[in-house]
Amino acid sequence: MTGLESIGERKIIELILEQLGKMPKMPIPFGDDVSAFPLSGSQLLILKTDMLVDKTDVPLGMSLWQAARKAVVMNVSDFAAKGAEPKVILVSLGLPRNLSENDISEIGAGLNAGAREYGAYVVGGDTNEASDLVISLSVFGVAKKNSVMLRSGAKPGDLVAVTGFFGKTSAGLKILLDNFEASQKIREALVQSVLMPCARLKEGLALRETKAVTAAIDSSDGLAWSLHEISKASNVGFLIDRLPTAEEVKKFAETTGFDPLELTLYGGEEYELVLTITPKLWNKAEKAVEKVGGKLLQIGKVTAEKKVVLEIDRKRHLIEPRGWEHFRKSNV
Amino acid sequence: MTGLESIGERKIIELILEQLGKMPKMPIPFGDDVSAFPLSGSQLLILKTDMLVDKTDVPLGMSLWQAARKAVVMNVSDFAAKGAEPKVILVSLGLPRNLSENDISEIGAGLNAGAREYGAYVVGGDTNEASDLVISLSVFGVAKKNSVMLRSGAKPGDLVAVTGFFGKTSAGLKILLDNFEASQKIREALVQSVLMPCARLKEGLALRETKAVTAAIDSSDGLAWSLHEISKASNVGFLIDRLPTAEEVKKFAETTGFDPLELTLYGGEEYELVLTITPKLWNKAEKAVEKVGGKLLQIGKVTAEKKVVLEIDRKRHLIEPRGWEHFRKSNV
Repeated sequence: MTGLESIGERKIIELILEQLGKMPKMPIPFGDDVSAFPLSGSQLLILKTDMLVDKTDVPLGMSLWQAARKAVVMNVSDFAAKGAEPKVILVSLGLPRNLSENDISEIGAGLNAGAREYGAYVVGGDTNEASDLVISLSVFGVAKKNSVMLRSGAKPGDLVAVTGFFGKTSAGLKILLDNFEASQKIREALVQSVLMPCARLKEGLALRETKAVTAAIDSSDGLAWSLHEISKASNVGFLIDRLPTAEEVKKFAETTGFDPLELTLYGGEEYELVLTITPKLWNKAEKAVEKVGGKLLQIGKVTAEKKVVLEIDRKRHLIEPRGWEHFRKSNV
Repeated sequence: MTGLESIGERKIIELILEQLGKMPKMPIPFGDDVSAFPLSGSQLLILKTDMLVDKTDVPLGMSLWQAARKAVVMNVSDFAAKGAEPKVILVSLGLPRNLSENDISEIGAGLNAGAREYGAYVVGGDTNEASDLVISLSVFGVAKKNSVMLRSGAKPGDLVAVTGFFGKTSAGLKILLDNFEASQKIREALVQSVLMPCARLKEGLALRETKAVTAAIDSSDGLAWSLHEISKASNVGFLIDRLPTAEEVKKFAETTGFDPLELTLYGGEEYELVLTITPKLWNKAEKAVEKVGGKLLQIGKVTAEKKVVLEIDRKRHLIEPRGWEHFRKSNV
């Protein structure tokens, strides 16, 4: 291995951060899901950029419309995790020469569909020639100071929650990329989770209002990775005792022999929220999420010891800090 | 020709715009240099995204540090043209695998140098794997409503001005890419204009304060193209009678046989401002620009007839609506 493959995405980010002069009084530190800039009064400008590159982010079987919509979902998911509303989107496109007029229209329609699905508008952009299809989005919104749900506030004793079941995209990618088989119904659910991901924006906004959330992150790099990120930012550990494996994933694992635990913990491209919740506000949080049509699943507790532990059948296992990382081979 | 080569960048943008639902009451219409979103009070959020792709935007001889800095300049130049201050920058990187740790640090340092040069900070970003080096930036600032200098306010009788001389980058690219020769001193000036472009931010901010500017655009797609864009947006024409050809370009043209008019009008990647000025405020505008160390060159007048005309030695020629366009071959 030479070049970036041996460095990995996280080291690359470190190398760049070392070179940057820090803005004084940053309202949200580097490394959280979004950035921020103080506006007048008690308002914060919330900023997020995320780039979709076809060769790593667009699996076989995903249409251009779906890819463009997914680029929006990837960004909105980070807004969801912070409890902030996305308002406007800028689009920078890198386009290979072999695309057709129809392809371009499809990309435009997918971007618009994604934006409107979450109440935002595309208001500007830029197009360029590139070897890969590159859809680079920046999303902006406004939030009240102190309302943003950071990664850093989890406390021992808090409850750990997620907004849905895990493992579907890992399994779906195995079907799409490696031709693993499943019954029609299971195949559809798993593949759909890859092609038409959803951001938990309604849930994130509802949770913000409850003030029950002490730390939050989205699960785009996998559940294990998300837990480790909160662990690092909040200086706490986790005891996970109810693994939120999707039913379809259990069945897929049974017929294919994959480890359901592996599929659940170490996937990625899943856009659930991973949250820590003040115990006495659990009911309020659960009701708020159910009111907007979502669900809040309790999966464990925050601990003082800075370890991320899984307990199954009274046996304890360490959850490793690995998940989706660009430049490295995918783990699952 | 098939695919995007036969469509061209402007048609691609049209195809995408057709698909987009428009935000109600957009403070700045699609097609101006920046986008905007209304904040509370009389504030506007100003937004801009522009992507640098090495294979079209980074000529041979440009270092990674210079390329990263240039990506900032490209975006800041649009803020300059609108009289808005850039505050924070998000960076999305597409990185080929063969880059080294040192390359990454160089890119980080170039981004920071560009940002700090114009008073902004890099506050967030995202890295991805890509075949090309892609540096996609989004820049944000805040401006007062009605202070933004749009493309659309030029009126017949207004004076046409630019903030510097033209043709240097066109000539510089011929030296870098096609090995044309020039004396040491001229070569240095021309090549420097390509490798270390500058955005006219001080000039743009000073001009905003004078309220003398009726329309403004930067010249990143070439002087001719910029004039045609203001012509379209303001529904006016131009009579240009003093072509702002740089001295070095005249000399380069003499020794190489290139047409200096062609180099001046139809280049690109030049980051001067092209402005229309209320005649009675000309002196005020000129002084304001000189006070910040810049210059304002009068090159002609706005006319009622929607034609862009060049007058040399009492002969009139039409200036064509062409300039730098992605997906097409460069024109100069």
